[in-house]
Amino acid sequence: MYSISQLQDLINKQIVEKKYPVTPAELYDPITYIMSLGGKRMRPVLTLMACDMFGGHVTKALDPALAIELFHNFTLMHDDIMDKAPLRRGQSTVHSKWNDNVAILSGDVMLVEAYKTLVSSIDSSILRDVLTVFNDTAAGVCEGQQTDMNFELMQDVSIPQYLDMIRLKTAVLLGCSLKIGALIGSASTEDAEHLYNFGVNIGIAFQLQDDILDVYGDPEKFGKQVGGDILSNKKTFLLIKAIELAEDLDKEELQHWLSAADCDPASKISSVTAIYDRLGIRQLAEEQMNLHARKSLYELNKVSVKAENKQVLVDFAGQLLIRET
Amino acid sequence: MYSISQLQDLINKQIVEKKYPVTPAELYDPITYIMSLGGKRMRPVLTLMACDMFGGHVTKALDPALAIELFHNFTLMHDDIMDKAPLRRGQSTVHSKWNDNVAILSGDVMLVEAYKTLVSSIDSSILRDVLTVFNDTAAGVCEGQQTDMNFELMQDVSIPQYLDMIRLKTAVLLGCSLKIGALIGSASTEDAEHLYNFGVNIGIAFQLQDDILDVYGDPEKFGKQVGGDILSNKKTFLLIKAIELAEDLDKEELQHWLSAADCDPASKISSVTAIYDRLGIRQLAEEQMNLHARKSLYELNKVSVKAENKQVLVDFAGQLLIRET
Repeated sequence: MYSISQLQDLINKQIVEKKYPVTPAELYDPITYIMSLGGKRMRPVLTLMACDMFGGHVTKALDPALAIELFHNFTLMHDDIMDKAPLRRGQSTVHSKWNDNVAILSGDVMLVEAYKTLVSSIDSSILRDVLTVFNDTAAGVCEGQQTDMNFELMQDVSIPQYLDMIRLKTAVLLGCSLKIGALIGSASTEDAEHLYNFGVNIGIAFQLQDDILDVYGDPEKFGKQVGGDILSNKKTFLLIKAIELAEDLDKEELQHWLSAADCDPASKISSVTAIYDRLGIRQLAEEQMNLHARKSLYELNKVSVKAENKQVLVDFAGQLLIRET
Repeated sequence: MYSISQLQDLINKQIVEKKYPVTPAELYDPITYIMSLGGKRMRPVLTLMACDMFGGHVTKALDPALAIELFHNFTLMHDDIMDKAPLRRGQSTVHSKWNDNVAILSGDVMLVEAYKTLVSSIDSSILRDVLTVFNDTAAGVCEGQQTDMNFELMQDVSIPQYLDMIRLKTAVLLGCSLKIGALIGSASTEDAEHLYNFGVNIGIAFQLQDDILDVYGDPEKFGKQVGGDILSNKKTFLLIKAIELAEDLDKEELQHWLSAADCDPASKISSVTAIYDRLGIRQLAEEQMNLHARKSLYELNKVSVKAENKQVLVDFAGQLLIRET
């Protein structure tokens, strides 16, 4: 079994060695650029891990894993246009460095490249199954992004609506990454499905952790500005739960901060955090996160390979439960 | 053999009956909207025609044909954002009716829908071949669109560069439509390739005809404003050839009209048309168009089915040669 860092090295090498057509430069340079911005490569690593788990040849999963990373970066390229984001991993986004049109069209061809890379590397016996989960996932990710944008304009978002949004926007791609790796590793349909469910639940848990860390994270470790979600009134699990539970003075104060136009950022962060503390929001978010982490381990437990082959994924899920305490 | 209008009815019925998810409405309503704007459905009809030609069941080609029409309309939805076009077939474009973000994301999911529709309807025995030509075509169409946008900023575009651009932007999708239909109809690889080449050449001829009609068309029949390309300095075959051939006074006058900021539109159209006439541009464009129409018939001739099965495509190509005279 390969370690996570070995698999990261393998996929990073695959990404660096991948060559795209030279012209038109405006179409293909942005692909090389965004793929070079780095990241943990979590999704392609999951594909390689799943293949490895069932004794499959990891080399056979490298191009499919690259296809998934291409798809993920295509969504980032288009999301950054829609969010008008200037930076991605500390560097200019594609639409800032070039322009919106370049980011639209280069993203389009990137999605096509993902399909090309899949179609040319997947065995015929599993091609339809792989493409079916990939297609359903790709549509789901678009649905999640649209729902997230809709939430910005909505007054009332419920917790079930929020959980369904993060399932689509973030979690199904982790499930898809694992399922494709499992299919390449010749896993049974049942095992591939259990790994898919493992991935979806771990993805939801990850997003909830991200919501919690945005408020309660160590600024040095978190990598993003603590309190960013509070400042932008982002409808996270924490805010939605707080709106649901707040009464009387807490409710008034929360509404004040949500509608305050010009306010001191530090005051807003500390005041809203204090409301969260009084309502016990952190604990509720951690319980929800734990629930999904446990569900993921329950699914992993059902996969019919020996325990030592699952250890790397157990560790992956376990990191969440550890950080929580 | 079905007639063109019978095939148009079949594909229109398929388009109307196709159902997309209901939510998020911002994602799926624009797909139903753009698909309802009509058009000749040339690409899906070619798919059905090619299948029919080899004795295949046209019903088996209906979903693949729909996938091609979905792909074509996805490119229109994104191109309209890039071109800031307010109208498409006399109706609001998606980005005008909703907004840019909706048009980006709805277009993305439309491309995924095209793949879904293909993957769920194509037999396993030809799935990889169908997806390979579809992927190569999709990337080519993006390359053509980027190249066309680049031409707007370039001083010198050569005729070979122009022909290559229209091959990618317009013609390869006609070739792809026919090839996929041929593969569904169990054509041999050679026959499918001949039909692909027929489609590419007929597509180039069509675009050249469009360039000619923009200047010399009957305003009542053409459906677009005659002279629109001249007014916008669009680098068509006619303008590129005229820049190449004009000397002395013609050259000076052409340059004057190309750089004139505020000028009477009717004077610009009549003056540039007069320069084209003096240089014999129309005849040169018609010769080029004829060349590709003849090449297309040469390829069709090599297809190993009886002559009567080819007649509908011969007529299709023949329309070009007739209109020229």
